[in-house]
Amino acid sequence: MLIIKLNREDKTPLFLQVVQQLITMINHTVLKPGERLPSSRKFARQLGVNRNTIYRAYEELYASGYIDSTPGAYSTVRKRPSIVFEKKLAKPPSLPQKQDRQTTGKPPEAPIDFRPLSPDNCLLPTEKLRKCINKVLIDRGESLLQYGEPAGYLPLREILANQLQKHNINISPGQLLITNGIQNGLDLLLKHLATPGTQIVVERPTYGRALQLFRLHNIDIIEVNMTPKGMDLNHLEILLKQHQPKMVYTMPNFHNPTGISTNQAHREKLLQLCEHHNTLLLEDGFEEELKYFGKAPLPLKSMDKKGIVIYLGTFSKVLFPGLRIGWLAANKNLIQAITHIKNICELSGNQLHQAAVAEFCKAGFFDLHLKKLHREYRKRMKTALRDMKLHLPKNMVTHTQPMGGYVIWLTMNHQIPEAPILMQKLVANGVYLTPGSHFFHTTNTLTTFRLSIAHTNETQITEGIKRIGHTLQQLSSFG
Amino acid sequence: MLIIKLNREDKTPLFLQVVQQLITMINHTVLKPGERLPSSRKFARQLGVNRNTIYRAYEELYASGYIDSTPGAYSTVRKRPSIVFEKKLAKPPSLPQKQDRQTTGKPPEAPIDFRPLSPDNCLLPTEKLRKCINKVLIDRGESLLQYGEPAGYLPLREILANQLQKHNINISPGQLLITNGIQNGLDLLLKHLATPGTQIVVERPTYGRALQLFRLHNIDIIEVNMTPKGMDLNHLEILLKQHQPKMVYTMPNFHNPTGISTNQAHREKLLQLCEHHNTLLLEDGFEEELKYFGKAPLPLKSMDKKGIVIYLGTFSKVLFPGLRIGWLAANKNLIQAITHIKNICELSGNQLHQAAVAEFCKAGFFDLHLKKLHREYRKRMKTALRDMKLHLPKNMVTHTQPMGGYVIWLTMNHQIPEAPILMQKLVANGVYLTPGSHFFHTTNTLTTFRLSIAHTNETQITEGIKRIGHTLQQLSSFG
Repeated sequence: MLIIKLNREDKTPLFLQVVQQLITMINHTVLKPGERLPSSRKFARQLGVNRNTIYRAYEELYASGYIDSTPGAYSTVRKRPSIVFEKKLAKPPSLPQKQDRQTTGKPPEAPIDFRPLSPDNCLLPTEKLRKCINKVLIDRGESLLQYGEPAGYLPLREILANQLQKHNINISPGQLLITNGIQNGLDLLLKHLATPGTQIVVERPTYGRALQLFRLHNIDIIEVNMTPKGMDLNHLEILLKQHQPKMVYTMPNFHNPTGISTNQAHREKLLQLCEHHNTLLLEDGFEEELKYFGKAPLPLKSMDKKGIVIYLGTFSKVLFPGLRIGWLAANKNLIQAITHIKNICELSGNQLHQAAVAEFCKAGFFDLHLKKLHREYRKRMKTALRDMKLHLPKNMVTHTQPMGGYVIWLTMNHQIPEAPILMQKLVANGVYLTPGSHFFHTTNTLTTFRLSIAHTNETQITEGIKRIGHTLQQLSSFG
Repeated sequence: MLIIKLNREDKTPLFLQVVQQLITMINHTVLKPGERLPSSRKFARQLGVNRNTIYRAYEELYASGYIDSTPGAYSTVRKRPSIVFEKKLAKPPSLPQKQDRQTTGKPPEAPIDFRPLSPDNCLLPTEKLRKCINKVLIDRGESLLQYGEPAGYLPLREILANQLQKHNINISPGQLLITNGIQNGLDLLLKHLATPGTQIVVERPTYGRALQLFRLHNIDIIEVNMTPKGMDLNHLEILLKQHQPKMVYTMPNFHNPTGISTNQAHREKLLQLCEHHNTLLLEDGFEEELKYFGKAPLPLKSMDKKGIVIYLGTFSKVLFPGLRIGWLAANKNLIQAITHIKNICELSGNQLHQAAVAEFCKAGFFDLHLKKLHREYRKRMKTALRDMKLHLPKNMVTHTQPMGGYVIWLTMNHQIPEAPILMQKLVANGVYLTPGSHFFHTTNTLTTFRLSIAHTNETQITEGIKRIGHTLQQLSSFG
């Protein structure tokens, strides 16, 4: 029997007291890896608490990597608690002396990398995925390893249709095409509807890899300004009147690179403008599932009565990028046309991975995993925003306040030297950011950077932001 | 100790006597699944035979699915001998009465399908692949499931470079791009070098999916006639003088759909013509490893001094099509340019599968598996060619004599009704062939079919060819 002492006078919520004491037991190997935890029913009775308290405690422990949890089975202490915070906190990145940084110009030993935009390795459920891959290979490996349906593995399309339903998007599996990530979906879409000179409106800034792809397809790229509330719709209206774009490309949630989300009114107006001007609306929902604060409005696709919205989704930002699984949702005719092109260009997608992920979702692992990501990245985002307030000189830099996703957008004021010079100084001080220039089709005059919290823990975020602040202050004292 | 009696007076080779007696023991579970066989050294000494005799016997047993064999370990009796011939022979496909076929017009219960062009499920080493996937996932799953190098997993490129070396193709991993099958390689190549109206010369007939892809890229397709010895080089020379094609597309070994292989002189002449007319030569080596009889000349790429040959390869025809792993070998500049395009269009390939296949090859499984395929398909091809001679009316149909690969090409004489009618009759008689029309860019006057032995065992091949013969005779008696 687990001995837990609850203090009902304490302000700490009961579930958190349970969590803290279990963590202590796990850290001191009173509870050993692989050991079973009591059922929530039994444990609740023993402690004289509501069963929900135990649920919440277990969820928290799962989310922070202390226990393994399989729906319908006992929770167990995780075998490799290497992903736990404490361990990371115990080994802060070693920092060079300030003296060294300035004199040698060599990067410090443990640079902090705010560039990657995929889930942190240490948060990924590799072991669970491995089990799912094994299951489907043993069950039906022979057929999964032959050519598959070009539209993608049907059971996964059914699961995706259900998942989209949670965001009020009502589509059937026949309105979905599984692609090798969003990039492949974009490429197939362009193969279908673009001819040289086709005009596409993009946000300024926007996802740099989309710009590259548009250029490869000889697209005439038209940039519409971003405001702190999303695409400038007055500007868009003028552009729609001046030009005849085939499509408007947008990321309404946690926009890449700015982190901005648009509100309900903005979405309705945007949809209305595109309907009125007979323009397709390409909605990139790459981080749809990564909302941490407040209430995110529903996707544009959920309000799409006329079938003009093409929706792109992916597992790359919430699960494993290496699986190369994205999807494209649109009206049936368009999906059929693009599936035909996919068939000609690739014959078949990767059925085995698709089946493994279907298994992963069916087992309930995906929902649990999302909770874990939310818990972790909510903390990271909070830390990042707090530390920016604390350590960045307000007169030199402004930044966005994302409600989710991985990225924050930094804009320097005019006195700051241009990006390459600042970049060099940042690298010399042991911090990597993505230069904003990647995200503009035509040159931007302001110095901007994208900061991603995807691969940095809270300690690293704090240290990294301090280094940015330090770099800016160095510059200002020189200037 | 295994008791084997060898009869040196018998005409049956010694290794075959060993094979036959071991098979009998396995079938009667004197040798049980999982049981270890003696080492070749020990067994050879015991029987008083050369060690090579035992090697050959074990290889034969492995190839026909009776034993498992891992390099450096003891061979063991296979746990699931379900793939063994005898079992298939014991359950021949149930045949309807001839009466039924003609009167009801309904297809018989077990149609024989000569259409698929991928390795037979029952010959695929799913279990071994599963082990390899597990190994790489446990070793380095986290990093394999992130984005990977756009050119493909380096250790696999190293293995491929070695494999190509066996065919005298000397390239470095930097001259290789791993693609999602050959189709993706073709698509990327066209993205790089084709603009609307670019001219490409293709064999007539040729791989139908390549034609589709060329049309998608708005290629101007120029057909050169096939002779029984390969592309008509006199015709090609005229075409090269008349036009300025960017590229000539060819399959020198076991050509799809005809099964024809070209000889050394033909290859040298073709290369010379392309060099002279400054035209790229695209060599599709999709079945490079599937030679059963005689000596196949070396690939064009192996003779390519001027770097004009682009070579396409794939695991889809010898291993699992579902892995979606092919490759493109060319000069470094071209590979870099195409890798850049792959990066823009897909970000990254499927690292996990690439790593698993690298593991599969490193463990020696690939070489063993190839031997097994050769053994099996050599028998199937022999059976097919023998039965065509026996059961097809010579005055109505001619066919090619492939030295390897999966396909045989049937050409009907002029009296035969056109393809769709004949097709209907064939289906009614329970046999499926691929209509030749798939393989022509412009309409062909002759009625042709492709017959693939990939997914049919010897019993089915014999029965299927009998059905074709029967169908043709029905037609001739009506006509």
